[in-house]
Parts: sequence; C-alpha cells; structure tokens
Amino acid sequence: MAGNSFGKIFKLTTFGESHGVAIGGVIDGCPPGLQLDFDAIQKELDRRKPGQSDIVTQRKEPDSVEFLSGIFEGQTTGTPIGFVIKNTNQKSKDYSHIKTVYRPSHADYTYDKKYGVRDYRGGGRSSARETASRVLDGAIAKQLLAIIQIPAYTSSVGDIFLEKPYQDLDFSKVESNSVRCPDEATAEKMISKIKDIRKEGNTIGGTVTCVLQNVPVGLGEPVFDKLHAELGKAMLSINAVKGFEYGSGFCGAKMKGTEHNDLFNSDGSTKTNLSGGIQGGISNGMDVYFRVAFKPVATVIQKQEALDSSGNIVEMQGKGRHDPCVVPRAIPIVEAMAALVLADFYLLNKLYN
Amino acid sequence: MAGNSFGKIFKLTTFGESHGVAIGGVIDGCPPGLQLDFDAIQKELDRRKPGQSDIVTQRKEPDSVEFLSGIFEGQTTGTPIGFVIKNTNQKSKDYSHIKTVYRPSHADYTYDKKYGVRDYRGGGRSSARETASRVLDGAIAKQLLAIIQIPAYTSSVGDIFLEKPYQDLDFSKVESNSVRCPDEATAEKMISKIKDIRKEGNTIGGTVTCVLQNVPVGLGEPVFDKLHAELGKAMLSINAVKGFEYGSGFCGAKMKGTEHNDLFNSDGSTKTNLSGGIQGGISNGMDVYFRVAFKPVATVIQKQEALDSSGNIVEMQGKGRHDPCVVPRAIPIVEAMAALVLADFYLLNKLYN
Amino acid sequence: MAGNSFGKIFKLTTFGESHGVAIGGVIDGCPPGLQLDFDAIQKELDRRKPGQSDIVTQRKEPDSVEFLSGIFEGQTTGTPIGFVIKNTNQKSKDYSHIKTVYRPSHADYTYDKKYGVRDYRGGGRSSARETASRVLDGAIAKQLLAIIQIPAYTSSVGDIFLEKPYQDLDFSKVESNSVRCPDEATAEKMISKIKDIRKEGNTIGGTVTCVLQNVPVGLGEPVFDKLHAELGKAMLSINAVKGFEYGSGFCGAKMKGTEHNDLFNSDGSTKTNLSGGIQGGISNGMDVYFRVAFKPVATVIQKQEALDSSGNIVEMQGKGRHDPCVVPRAIPIVEAMAALVLADFYLLNKLYN
Amino acid sequence: MAGNSFGKIFKLTTFGESHGVAIGGVIDGCPPGLQLDFDAIQKELDRRKPGQSDIVTQRKEPDSVEFLSGIFEGQTTGTPIGFVIKNTNQKSKDYSHIKTVYRPSHADYTYDKKYGVRDYRGGGRSSARETASRVLDGAIAKQLLAIIQIPAYTSSVGDIFLEKPYQDLDFSKVESNSVRCPDEATAEKMISKIKDIRKEGNTIGGTVTCVLQNVPVGLGEPVFDKLHAELGKAMLSINAVKGFEYGSGFCGAKMKGTEHNDLFNSDGSTKTNLSGGIQGGISNGMDVYFRVAFKPVATVIQKQEALDSSGNIVEMQGKGRHDPCVVPRAIPIVEAMAALVLADFYLLNKLYN
Repeated sequence: MAGNSFGKIFKLTTFGESHGVAIGGVIDGCPPGLQLDFDAIQKELDRRKPGQSDIVTQRKEPDSVEFLSGIFEGQTTGTPIGFVIKNTNQKSKDYSHIKTVYRPSHADYTYDKKYGVRDYRGGGRSSARETASRVLDGAIAKQLLAIIQIPAYTSSVGDIFLEKPYQDLDFSKVESNSVRCPDEATAEKMISKIKDIRKEGNTIGGTVTCVLQNVPVGLGEPVFDKLHAELGKAMLSINAVKGFEYGSGFCGAKMKGTEHNDLFNSDGSTKTNLSGGIQGGISNGMDVYFRVAFKPVATVIQKQEALDSSGNIVEMQGKGRHDPCVVPRAIPIVEAMAALVLADFYLLNKLYN
Repeated sequence: MAGNSFGKIFKLTTFGESHGVAIGGVIDGCPPGLQLDFDAIQKELDRRKPGQSDIVTQRKEPDSVEFLSGIFEGQTTGTPIGFVIKNTNQKSKDYSHIKTVYRPSHADYTYDKKYGVRDYRGGGRSSARETASRVLDGAIAKQLLAIIQIPAYTSSVGDIFLEKPYQDLDFSKVESNSVRCPDEATAEKMISKIKDIRKEGNTIGGTVTCVLQNVPVGLGEPVFDKLHAELGKAMLSINAVKGFEYGSGFCGAKMKGTEHNDLFNSDGSTKTNLSGGIQGGISNGMDVYFRVAFKPVATVIQKQEALDSSGNIVEMQGKGRHDPCVVPRAIPIVEAMAALVLADFYLLNKLYN
Repeated sequence: MAGNSFGKIFKLTTFGESHGVAIGGVIDGCPPGLQLDFDAIQKELDRRKPGQSDIVTQRKEPDSVEFLSGIFEGQTTGTPIGFVIKNTNQKSKDYSHIKTVYRPSHADYTYDKKYGVRDYRGGGRSSARETASRVLDGAIAKQLLAIIQIPAYTSSVGDIFLEKPYQDLDFSKVESNSVRCPDEATAEKMISKIKDIRKEGNTIGGTVTCVLQNVPVGLGEPVFDKLHAELGKAMLSINAVKGFEYGSGFCGAKMKGTEHNDLFNSDGSTKTNLSGGIQGGISNGMDVYFRVAFKPVATVIQKQEALDSSGNIVEMQGKGRHDPCVVPRAIPIVEAMAALVLADFYLLNKLYN
Repeated sequence: MAGNSFGKIFKLTTFGESHGVAIGGVIDGCPPGLQLDFDAIQKELDRRKPGQSDIVTQRKEPDSVEFLSGIFEGQTTGTPIGFVIKNTNQKSKDYSHIKTVYRPSHADYTYDKKYGVRDYRGGGRSSARETASRVLDGAIAKQLLAIIQIPAYTSSVGDIFLEKPYQDLDFSKVESNSVRCPDEATAEKMISKIKDIRKEGNTIGGTVTCVLQNVPVGLGEPVFDKLHAELGKAMLSINAVKGFEYGSGFCGAKMKGTEHNDLFNSDGSTKTNLSGGIQGGISNGMDVYFRVAFKPVATVIQKQEALDSSGNIVEMQGKGRHDPCVVPRAIPIVEAMAALVLADFYLLNKLYN
C-alpha cells in the first residue's frame, strides 16, 4: 500500500485513473521562491500528450493543468502544490463487455487479484495516463535545477539502432522529428518502421537514452540510495520499462578492469567515462548517462486470446487509438523522472553545506 | 543523508567500514515467532566470505555474526534485531601513503568531495564488506519466506555466457563449483577464464541471473513501488552493478507486441513469460527472473595512474588480495537483496487480507 | 519540507490555502473494497464547517467534497483517493493593506521568515481551513474502523469545566447542543460564556476530551511510535493546540505508584484505568482517553498592535467572521486525527497475523 | 512494526533489551566533519545511569559506549555511526517464576498479546534502559547544535512544585543536587519526599520542564510536522510520560485572546511568550519551553496483585533496585529527545538556504 509517492524531500504523490474525473497530485517539498515558467510546464505536457503526431495514438486530450495551491503571484511558496489534470477524453460508453476480461500482458489480472476490485474502464490506475503528473512535476524540477541539462532521445526502435555515441549527437535536434531521435537518417528509418508496424496492427519496443549534464559532484546517498539505484527505480517505475543500465552497463560486464577504469585528469575529471558519472553511488561531475528498455505496447489491433474472470479463454480484439510504439512519448517521462531524482538529491546535498 | 536503510516494513539499517572495529546493523520489523536456523544464516555468510575458494580474494575473514537483541530462546520477538560482525582482518599497518590518493574508478574521490572527510584505510564505507550485513538479513528473510525459492547463479564471466535458459538448469548444482554456474562445462570455462585474468593481474566483469519461484500473486505496490522497480533499486545498490533487466529485458525492446504478449492459460498462468512474472508492477504468480550486470573490479595488480588530493597525477599499484571477478561472491548478495524486497512486499500484502 | 503527510500505511497528504482555488489531498493506502457512506462523510464535514451555529464563525462555506479517483461504484479500489474541496468563500477583495503586516500570535511572521514569501490573503496554509481535509479522511477512517467508537466532546470552555468523568456521560448527547458538551447544564453555561466573549470582541480557549472505545489489544509500535506518542503528535498538529495528556495525565504526576497501578481482572481487563488503555505504548483493550488543550483564537475584534515587515509597530483591528472559541468546531477534527492514528496502527497490526 | 527509528534526516535507530547482551543503535545522517567531544558524551550517559545518587536505583551499570563506525580520527565522516552499550548488570538468575506473570501497569501483558512471545527477563524492550541510546545520540545532537542551549530540570515531584517561572532560575544549578531542581529550597523538599516514598516501598510521579534557548527562527515543518508536534511525540515516546504541554499549555485553555496574544517588539521578538516560541508550528526565535508529566514507576516494593498467563490473579512483590522517582534520571532523556527533534529540523531547514 501507499506506493504512490516518489522522493524524500522533493516529494510527488499522484492519484487518478485513466477514465475517472481527473488525474493529479501533490508536490510537497518544492523550495519557496521559485518563479515558475508555466509555458515551459505546458510544453513538457504537450511533449507527452496523445495525438501530437502521426506516429502516436490519435486520442485527443489537451492535458491542461490546473494548479490549486502552493503558488502565489507566479512563484512557489514552500507549501504543497496541488494540481489536477482533467480527463476530457473518457467516454461514457458501455464497458460492461470487458468488465470481466483480462487482456494478455496488461495489469488487469494482477490488479484484480491484488485488490479484489478493479476500475475496468480502460487501464485504470495502471494506465500510462498517470505519467502526465510525473511530467508536470518533472517540469518544475527542471526549473529548480536550471543549471543541469537532462536531454533524452530515442536510441532504438525495434532493431533500428542509433549507433552513434551520445557525444556525437546534437541534442537540439531531438524535437525536430516525431520520433525524437536527433540523427535525421536514423529518425527516418524509425518513423518508417513505426508506420509499418501500425499498419499491421502491431506494436514495437525501443530504448531511450538519457544524459544528465552539469550534475554537481556529490549527489547520491550510499549505501542503498545510490544515485544510479534511485535512477534505476525511477525508470523501472515507468510503464512498459524492462531494463536499465548506466555507464558501461551490460557491456561493462564483458570488460577487464584495465579497460574499464576511468583514469583521472588533474582537475578530477576522467579521461574516459565508463563509470557513467557515478562512483560509489555518488556523482563525480562527469556526464551521467543511462539507457532504458521499453517493451512493445500490449494492445495490438489483432485478434488475441484473453482470459475472463470465470476461467474461460475468450477471443478479443484491441481497437481504437493506441500507440504503435511508446518510445517517442516516453522521452519527456524519462527526463521528468530523472529530474525528480536529481531534485531530491540536489536538495538533500544542501544538508552538507 | 540517511541512505543506509532498506525496506519499509522489513527494514534493514547497516553501519560499518571495512577497516573499522566492526560492521553490523539493525533489522527492524521482522515478525515475531520466527524460529531461526542459525546454521543456515552462517552458511549464507560463508557463501559471501573472502577466501572461500581459489578464484576469489585470499583474504581470511570468518564473518561470524553476533546477535545482540531481538531473539529470545532462538526465535524472533518482534523487537529490533541488532547484530555485529567483527572486522578481524583489518591491519594496523600504515595507510598514510594512500591517505591523499584517489584510485581510479573507486569511490575515494566522490566520498572525499561529498563528505569532506574520508576514512582512507581501504574502501571504508564504500567497500563491499558492508554487503555481509545484507547477506545476513537476507538469510533471515529467506526463512520468513520459506515457500519462495530464490536461486541465483553466474550467467556470464567476461565473454563466456551460459547460453541455456534458466528453465533448463538444475539449480541444485549452483554450489557444486566455485564460480556458481550450474552448467558444469560452462563453469569450467569461467573458472579457467578467471584464473587467467588473475594471472595477468587484471579483473573481469560478469552477470548474475536470479529466479524467484513460487512468488504469491499480488506482490508490488504501484505506481512507484512496483515489484521490479524495487528489485532494480535493490540490485543497483550492490557494489559494482551497472545494469538490471527483468523478463524479456533489453531484448524485449526489439520485439513486436504479438511476439511479446504472454497468452493466458485458463488457470491464470501464462503460456510464455516474457513479462518476467510481473504485470503492472505486481507479481502474477509466474517465475520472476532478472539479470544483473557487474563491472570488473577496479583494483588491478598493475601500475595505474591515480590522482592525489593536490591535483597531481601519481602512479600507484594495487596489491594484495582482491577478487579477480566479483560475480561468484555476488550470488548470495543478489539473493539476499531479492529476499529483502520480497519480504517487504510479502508483509505489506498482508494489509489486504 | 515535506511535512504535509500523515500516517505510514493509511497516509494522508493535504494541500491548499484558505484563499486559494481549493484545498484537498490524497489518501494513499486505504484498503480496497470499502463501501463508502458518502452521507456520513459529508455529515462529518458539516460538523466542522463554518456557519453551523450561532456560537461559531458566521462565514458561509458549504465544504462539499469532490472525489477524483480511487473510488469505483461506491467502493474504494486500493488506489489513491484524490479529493478537492473548493474555496467558495474567498473574496476577491484587496488584501494589499495587510500584505506586510504580521498579526500577533498568528503564523504570519514565522511563515514569512521561514519561506521568504507568503500568501498574505488570510491565514494561507496556516489557516484551520486545511483541517477540512483531515475531517474528510477521518470520516473514511471511521468507516474502516467500524467497530471502534471515537467520541469527543467539549470538556471545558475558559474556566467552565465539565466535572463529570467520561464514564458518567451519554455521548449520544454531544450533538444535541451547539457547544458539543454532553452535559446539558454545563453546555448552557459554556454557550453563554462564548456569547459573552463574542460580545466583547474577544475569544476564549477550551479543552476537548476524546475516548477511543473497543480498541483492539496490540495497537502501537514501540519504542518511538507508541500509540499515545502518535496520538499526541496528531493532536498537537491541530491548529491552536497547546497540550495533550492521556490517562491520568498531569494529575498522574502527583500520584504514588500504589495509587496509580491498574490491577488486573482475570480476563486481562483492569479494575482502574489510569493507564488510559495503553501500556508500553500498546493498547491493552481498555478505553483509551485523552484531553487536548486549545488556546484562544488569536484574532480578536479589538484594536491590537501588530508588526509590519519594515519593523514598525502598527495598530490593527481584527474584523469579520471569526470563531470566538474553536472548541466546538474542533471536536470533529480531534476525532478525525484520532481515527487516522488508529487506522494506521490497525493496518500495521495486520502484519502480525 | 518498525517503530524503532526516530527522525527523518538525523535518524536514530535503536535496538536492545534490558537483559540481553547489549543495547545500541545506529545514527544515520549525522553531518560529516563534526569533531566529537567524547567526554561530554559520557557525561550525558552518566547523568542517566543507575546508581548515580542515593535517590535513584542502586543498580550499578557503567553505561560505557563503544563506537563501531562513522567516526574517524575523532570526527564524524557522514557515514552511519554504529554503537553498542553492553549490559553488564544482567544477572544469570532464574527468571522462570515470573515467566508467565503480567505485572500491573507494566508492558508485560501488552507485549505478550501483541507479539505472542516475550523476553520475560525484566522489562525487555520496554525497559527504560533503551533510553541510554537516546541520551548518547542526544549528546551528539547537542554538539551539532552548539549554539542552542537545552536545559531541563525537575519542576515537580508529587505535590511539591517549583513555583518560580523558568526565567527566574539559574540553570547552572541543575546539576548541583541529586534531584536536578535548580532551586535549592525546593530541591531539598523534593529529595526528602523521594526518600520518604522509597522508605514506604512506594514510588512517586513528577514533571520536567525544558527550555530551548537560541533556537533559530524557522524550525518546524507544517502542517503535520510542526515543531511542537514533534517535540510532543518525542517526549511521549519516553517511558512513563503521560502528558505534554508547551507555552501556555493547559492554562492557555482558560485564557482570553487579548490576554494570550504575544504583542511584538519592533525587532520581531515578543513582549510576552505564551506562544512558547512557536507560531504556526514554526519557531519564532523566542525561547521554546514545555513541560512533561511522568507517572510514578509501576514497580513498588509492596505486595500487589498480578495476572498470570493462565488467567489467575496471583500475588507478587517487587524487589530489588528500582527508582522511587524517575524524574531525576529523566532530565537528560528529555534534553536528548529535544536535541534530536531540533537536529532534524535544523538540518531540514538548510534546504531553504
């Protein structure tokens, strides 16, 4: 129970189901005196919202936020920031036919078994709609952490990989195409792939790479709350995520110590950065970078077997307006969760000064 | 600050440096009335201890635990269990020559920058010695979770991979060789590889795979405290870990929805298990399985450049008794951290009943 | 920071200022499957709302709650319950004249010093308006704890005391008069006192006594989270509270051991109950009872000196519609906070079974 | 479960029973670089230890602490401080005759009912022996908060009250007598009273007053974690405490607003301080003061009825070496818990700067 809060100091609590009145949350612990850029906040929400391009779900939902407290004359007051994002797209249609059906690889079955009751209208609490609240909070965290940059981008879609290391990329181009890959040639291939997948009524997985630039030395709280451990938890808490690696990641497991060690420059920076900017769980001032794996969306527009609550295998067909690939819309979510982790450690680190 | 506790209900707090008097901790929230098997606890500690075989560090340290509270007539009382493991191997030698040296890819630099003070005798708090406390607590958690099995094994050392899926393995053979790989042929190659690496004064990375069997349906607390998110954090909090994936993991990011979806059997089990036993962050009764990447140990017995606190690049040479590959000794640590996560969710889940 | 949550398992987070758009909150950890009685919830809110009688503030505010999530077909789903209570009474008047004035014994000065910024329109976050969210959550907690009764009543107003012990009172009469004292004769004196006080533009303090009946044996988590310690914190977190005592309380400090000890009956109950139903921080099955002291409201309708932010002493006069005595409206708040404490420990105690 | 930690940032976790091997704990979150005065720490422990004067228990226990981690070359390193205090006085005598007896107004009955198992040798976990760990941690907190003074003193024993307000007292005299009352004449009466009580084999309650001087403006985290709410919880978590009041306290409940309001001086200080240095849950720079009620110790050296676990009323007689009045030894405990609360808020407040 009570797994709906994230962060110790800069703490977000979210609520809301996909087909309820609204989603929303409370941000508790945002420092006072932060002059908010509301356009920038809405812009982040727009990066996540449905219907933004022709390779994502065509559902229309404006995702406009209403702030209820904690902000006065445009700046934060140090009191909790309550906010609500209305669900304008939920239909008053009849859901009774799916009331008792568990879709494969969705959370229908596990929610029903755990809670004994389920809001069967769509994904309910397990819907990725909840991540809009995270993006909103992340947008505020980014403003708090103004000196830190947190670019993320699509690094693979299915078997199409962006082969260049992040150092060779121009992050200003991430938003220049709908798949959010900063390499134009690769982006085109990815977009084409996603369109093909959509045509066959299927979905496809992908990966997101994120880089944290200008992170101060000293963030992270060993031994359990290491910087990368909290980043990992944050990413794994996002819908559809199956894996997380940072720095050398799984490749590092094939390497030798002499290859892997990052030798120092005299200013404390390192010549290489296989460590991924973190040593002993604490940032060392180099770029922190990590990669996140997303599985393909479970809802496909093809006939599939499902289970009903009486134990019968039934045939069902997904319909409607789903993402053929979550990765383009996941970019702002990954950035937001990274910002929440950093904001928490950034504030915690003030205790040492 | 205060990052030395793990768990919400079954809560472990650890303390101790590698070269101090002792390490130890407090287990708060262990249910009363659990009759402890102390031999089983020591056995787990022995699986982690230095000097246990010829492919690990030859340091000798018995790692025997002294319980100080919370246990009466052999059973837990519901009060906190305090325990201490003495450091018998720390030498009273002169460490002043390394007092100001930051070793590459160790935590020397980041601890010094974060805290402004550092116990320079060995790894201090960042030493993997701290994980003995985790193994101890994990051994108790395993006894609490008697019906759940948590086998882990070495699935790769450098570029030598155990190619078989876990379903084809006989976990009873994990302890039959020093590298803890249940496939004899692969184990031999791994052992040989580690010996070669040690001869050249180098180190090598590897991966550990862990399977959680007989996990009850319903464990995990969405949306942030998903079962796999906490498992990920737990694994990433272990020294030298660079990546975590569960179920289909990074491979899943290349797949299509129709390939990836796990179709149901009529009893609620699934025909495939790419989900890794978790849907929507909640266990579904299938095996939970995951893979953890460990980088090569940073201490190599070769000359390397290091940085001193005055900003000079100095030459240093690792010496002594270090692990050429951490993976064999990491097996019980991975199991222990998995047990801690499960124990917490297992107890939390009682709230629903 | 982040002091706006209460409870570990049954967790309430509140937000909102008196003159903002709305107040509200999130209840995380309410068990699923609880069929809610919405009339009972509104009834509790009505007991707290302004304007309910002629001895409380005459402000009119309906305090109607809108639930946004976590409830489906009238029952809780186990997901977080988001709710909002609109501020309908905030005036769009000009507050600039009090913008820089710190009223005596209000929180204006301390909020400004702590946060460096302040919503100067009324009490802001420090207003007792926030307690409406607590009463709402308490109403749900009461439904969760159906077997436990939590009557509270006014036990003194100024120097008028209800001299009878709680055992001699008929709690069904608490709501029969506007001051919420179950003894009619005393109630009349209290009401008369409050009317006099109001006429002179003054305010008066008082005490509330609360009894927890049918509390199961075993609630409370020593050594720090003792049942009475959490009850004390809960009560002291209510606006205007200056003291808390339970069982024999401050009188017990004058007694001898032989007078104070509660001798057992053979069924485990005790012949006396100076312990107040708690031993070693754990409920023993007897009534838990405690008393809470409320200071007089700081806003008086008389001229008083105040401080402005430039360091000048200025004269100001409270006006408008304030409570001459908070105690009658505090009754449901005391009950609600007691219910939150009990709900948390009640759920925690399931871990033992 | 898991109620053995106190504090969010400066966090103490304790363990240990009165008749086990040792008590001890972990201090997590103490800032690095604090040069510790170990004599001052031991001095605080000596103020609490048994056998220190002729009006307290004559048990002999040196209460010497062994630090195991977190301190290097005399200063804190920012890593957790593990410590152990051996139980040297526990006897290897036969406790089987009291194994099944619940003493009146002790925690025997409630521990047994809650946990189903009980360390029956003495008070076990519910013994005040655990508070030695608190005093130790408080001694460190005091050194962290060097500018704040935290004098406490005995303000009543039974019906003997120290009538002077704290402003008229010379705190340097607290340690000049064994009852820790800074007024000599009253101290003598109190001591005489305690000696009489002891002679009759009885015990007596009392109160402690504590003053926090030079507290910075801004400590406390509304709305739930108000400074006085946490102080209240801290005090109520001490064994035998039945009540807490701060500032005007229960007397304030009899007052009028015009009498109670603290008018400002132009420097932000107030002419009176009925608020007790806290407004809206936040310190305002004036003295914070509060009073704590302790019941008489339950163990009396007279025959009393007790209950056995089979439901029989049996006769028992307390014997041995118990405190006739806990108040003199409670002084350092009250100070310690106040220091822990202040340390936590002091560190949290750094987040605003």
